[in-house]
Amino acid sequence: MRNTAVLLIDCPDRKGLVAAVSGLLYRHGANILHADQHRDQEAGLFFMRVEWDLEAFGLDAFRAEFAPLAGELCMRWRIEEMARRPRVALFVSQYLHCLVDLLHRRQIGELNCEIPLIVSNHPDAGALARFHGVEFRLVPVTAAARSEAEAEQVALLGEHGIELIVLARYMQILSPDFVRRYPRRIINVHHSFLPAFVGARPYHAAFQRGVKLIGATSHYVTEELDAGPIIEQDVVRISHRDQVEDLIVKGRDLERMVLSRAVMWHLEQRILCYEKKTVIFD
Amino acid sequence: MRNTAVLLIDCPDRKGLVAAVSGLLYRHGANILHADQHRDQEAGLFFMRVEWDLEAFGLDAFRAEFAPLAGELCMRWRIEEMARRPRVALFVSQYLHCLVDLLHRRQIGELNCEIPLIVSNHPDAGALARFHGVEFRLVPVTAAARSEAEAEQVALLGEHGIELIVLARYMQILSPDFVRRYPRRIINVHHSFLPAFVGARPYHAAFQRGVKLIGATSHYVTEELDAGPIIEQDVVRISHRDQVEDLIVKGRDLERMVLSRAVMWHLEQRILCYEKKTVIFD
Amino acid sequence: MRNTAVLLIDCPDRKGLVAAVSGLLYRHGANILHADQHRDQEAGLFFMRVEWDLEAFGLDAFRAEFAPLAGELCMRWRIEEMARRPRVALFVSQYLHCLVDLLHRRQIGELNCEIPLIVSNHPDAGALARFHGVEFRLVPVTAAARSEAEAEQVALLGEHGIELIVLARYMQILSPDFVRRYPRRIINVHHSFLPAFVGARPYHAAFQRGVKLIGATSHYVTEELDAGPIIEQDVVRISHRDQVEDLIVKGRDLERMVLSRAVMWHLEQRILCYEKKTVIFD
Amino acid sequence: MRNTAVLLIDCPDRKGLVAAVSGLLYRHGANILHADQHRDQEAGLFFMRVEWDLEAFGLDAFRAEFAPLAGELCMRWRIEEMARRPRVALFVSQYLHCLVDLLHRRQIGELNCEIPLIVSNHPDAGALARFHGVEFRLVPVTAAARSEAEAEQVALLGEHGIELIVLARYMQILSPDFVRRYPRRIINVHHSFLPAFVGARPYHAAFQRGVKLIGATSHYVTEELDAGPIIEQDVVRISHRDQVEDLIVKGRDLERMVLSRAVMWHLEQRILCYEKKTVIFD
Repeated sequence: MRNTAVLLIDCPDRKGLVAAVSGLLYRHGANILHADQHRDQEAGLFFMRVEWDLEAFGLDAFRAEFAPLAGELCMRWRIEEMARRPRVALFVSQYLHCLVDLLHRRQIGELNCEIPLIVSNHPDAGALARFHGVEFRLVPVTAAARSEAEAEQVALLGEHGIELIVLARYMQILSPDFVRRYPRRIINVHHSFLPAFVGARPYHAAFQRGVKLIGATSHYVTEELDAGPIIEQDVVRISHRDQVEDLIVKGRDLERMVLSRAVMWHLEQRILCYEKKTVIFD
Repeated sequence: MRNTAVLLIDCPDRKGLVAAVSGLLYRHGANILHADQHRDQEAGLFFMRVEWDLEAFGLDAFRAEFAPLAGELCMRWRIEEMARRPRVALFVSQYLHCLVDLLHRRQIGELNCEIPLIVSNHPDAGALARFHGVEFRLVPVTAAARSEAEAEQVALLGEHGIELIVLARYMQILSPDFVRRYPRRIINVHHSFLPAFVGARPYHAAFQRGVKLIGATSHYVTEELDAGPIIEQDVVRISHRDQVEDLIVKGRDLERMVLSRAVMWHLEQRILCYEKKTVIFD
Repeated sequence: MRNTAVLLIDCPDRKGLVAAVSGLLYRHGANILHADQHRDQEAGLFFMRVEWDLEAFGLDAFRAEFAPLAGELCMRWRIEEMARRPRVALFVSQYLHCLVDLLHRRQIGELNCEIPLIVSNHPDAGALARFHGVEFRLVPVTAAARSEAEAEQVALLGEHGIELIVLARYMQILSPDFVRRYPRRIINVHHSFLPAFVGARPYHAAFQRGVKLIGATSHYVTEELDAGPIIEQDVVRISHRDQVEDLIVKGRDLERMVLSRAVMWHLEQRILCYEKKTVIFD
Repeated sequence: MRNTAVLLIDCPDRKGLVAAVSGLLYRHGANILHADQHRDQEAGLFFMRVEWDLEAFGLDAFRAEFAPLAGELCMRWRIEEMARRPRVALFVSQYLHCLVDLLHRRQIGELNCEIPLIVSNHPDAGALARFHGVEFRLVPVTAAARSEAEAEQVALLGEHGIELIVLARYMQILSPDFVRRYPRRIINVHHSFLPAFVGARPYHAAFQRGVKLIGATSHYVTEELDAGPIIEQDVVRISHRDQVEDLIVKGRDLERMVLSRAVMWHLEQRILCYEKKTVIFD
């Protein structure tokens, strides 16, 4: 268990920001493990992530002194204690490869979170959920009763104290109302190299277009379909020999990787969003 | 100098095509060096490329016997003698990195062609053309006099017996009339991972969208902008640290590679087009 | 279920090989789905893979006529019926990520095989084996009793009619005796980009050397450690920020992919070995 | 022209390093453009790179105050003014692709340096040197007269005030004496994925071994052959269809890219070496 704190900051850029933050941490005796900054010079913005050891560190005292400083410097900020494992719900439909992958990564400690809930509009994932000791809830979704289904999902998410929703090839579109409840807290994987091939059946579209690489994209879900801030993308080479079914097989590996990296980075508090973009601290 | 012939075939798929072609080649004593076939089962099409040694091989006799067979089997076909070096014109504007690259590859024999002509709407490439002993023709292009410019270009291409036009970051859009004169004989490089970011300033668009990989695409030019059959694509990873200028620098390496591979494969008679796609025999 | 046959050939190169094989297939009415050839000109060798539809095809009659032809042409050859699913045993130690991955790929039909047996020197994989309905056999291996353990393994493999052994991060070295029983029938994944970092703890060695990419390699096991014919390799970028633990995490994705591709290609009869190398028909 | 300064630090890790450096820069009014740190926790080392605007910044005053602080904190450090363009010599033999590439990158401003001198043991690069207005010196190297050749080279380097030597496919091995004169100031490109295939003819070795990817590596030259700190590596996929000549062609693109990136990062003061490794600040 990592007993550390992460401080994430974004604010208008100005002189002295690093000095102010690192100086305060030093006066409180912080043993800094990682620190990274970024400036978007065009946008005039500053971003920072610092992680330090909490062993013998008075977090409350630091927070009390940091808050007014942050206010002065117009910072948006948060401090996360890494020993606390966020509660994550996985949404899935009939394709289970991302689900299998995420559950295994959690099991071996690669993903530092709790997964108390799996929600699906298909029954297929039930056995796997039981194997991993995770509650499985079947919530069928029909065009006629979409809002009832979402009401049930929202209730489940509330009961389980869910902080992050991962759409692990969940094939239903969430309503704007639903999305607004979880800003920057829903991660989706889209099976194309966005912004190419937005929408349904991207592998078929890629095949038709004759591209030489196919991709997958993980992103935060916003109200606009497939247009949220991109977290990770990857591609694999294909050739004329690959039929649509081959694209689907090759794409599954991409989907697993870009989704799991996005979830890992979110859980490690490495992501800051601004405009439609992400800063990924590595 | 490679003294070989390449036979390229595409036709409706049916039984016995490989047997017919390879049987005839065998009876003529061909020493086959490479042979590759492809079937697009959905489209019901067959594609084949065979390369064989011309040493002591009677090409005319083979051709005389092959032509009626090909007619029977509804083949589109051509035979290319690889000892003959196609005549290529390079079109360029003010960015010269692809031009430098292609001229060097020709010089060291990586590209098996003649380059008798460089056409540009900017004077910058003149010195480089002279260094390589290639005729340089400045053809300014203005909105008002586009068709006059194209008429001049067409005349130059005719005079020099040009068989392939390579747009090596040529920043002018060719008219449909011009494009129709050179079907599957104009190769362009577009500095994005098509079909994402069609049109002008793709690096700026990629930066705005916050993608995590940028790409480049080489393709045959058709009358529809950036929509011709894709020959090659590649990508490189970027991060939030990369500004537009960094994308431009990183992209130049992609552009060089995807364009030069496309030209090489075209010259080696490795490309067959169908619908909006390419078969690249490797 | 794919009702096709695959013919694999390797032999000294000479004129007329494709004509002979494709001609015979044509006379037997074969509907060829894929055909690929390769010549290693330096070694003077010819390799061929043909796959055709068995619907209304007399395989025995073809075989009867093909065998003498093959003898004449000094071919090593085999015909595999793809409807028959090979029987595969998975060997594993305490790291289960490749096992989870292979079992899921089998479950969704990506791997066309039976997996009747999992052998391990650790008990950890037992629950997963039960979940997938696969027999799990714990065979502890100690330095003192290695040959007894191998005798037990060989007996198990015989009982289950195993045709392919996949070492899915099995951390014991197999004896030459064991290896000789399964020539080209044991696939291993080594967690480095071979031939760099042969032997134990390759991620630690890569970290010490300061490489900028790490790799993984799947290969057939031969009597010489990590020196068998390479089937597949892949790499991922690392940086100075990555500690050994990060290499291990990133490497797991590589291991899964290169091992599963090797197993898939083996099952699809796409691999021919010669010298220390492989031909992978795609 | 970028009017900035870069401060590079490495030292034993301890609390307060960032606070000390950023605090001092802030008190001097520095407008920081980039800052990055790294800790190697195992080795207990701290690394930092800061770049700031020199407009209206008193560099001498800063330096006077920084030096004693650095002494206290046991820092090795240097400050580089980016407006000053380092003087680089290119060493080359008969393969010119890296030379063509580096000269073009310098010409378009991608490499921020002067290139006053090209040294070769072959005459081939003379015309290209003249085209770029660079002095070309032919220094033949024979086994018998290696030390005389090196003495001549050292004299040339001295006359031209050379600070960095780039071995752009220079096929002679430099003596330990020579290497010791330019510690961390000689960059080489080796045409393999080191540590695989050290020494001569790596493409032939890769072909013999049957690897599925080939690589190239740029590194600082040390007295031990091909064992210096690695700066950059990249790979490209090959298949059984690729003969040695194809590996050489594909490898040239890798060589160009990994060498030019290494030179660019060195010139941008992004590289710190420790043990046999590099930290590359991005």
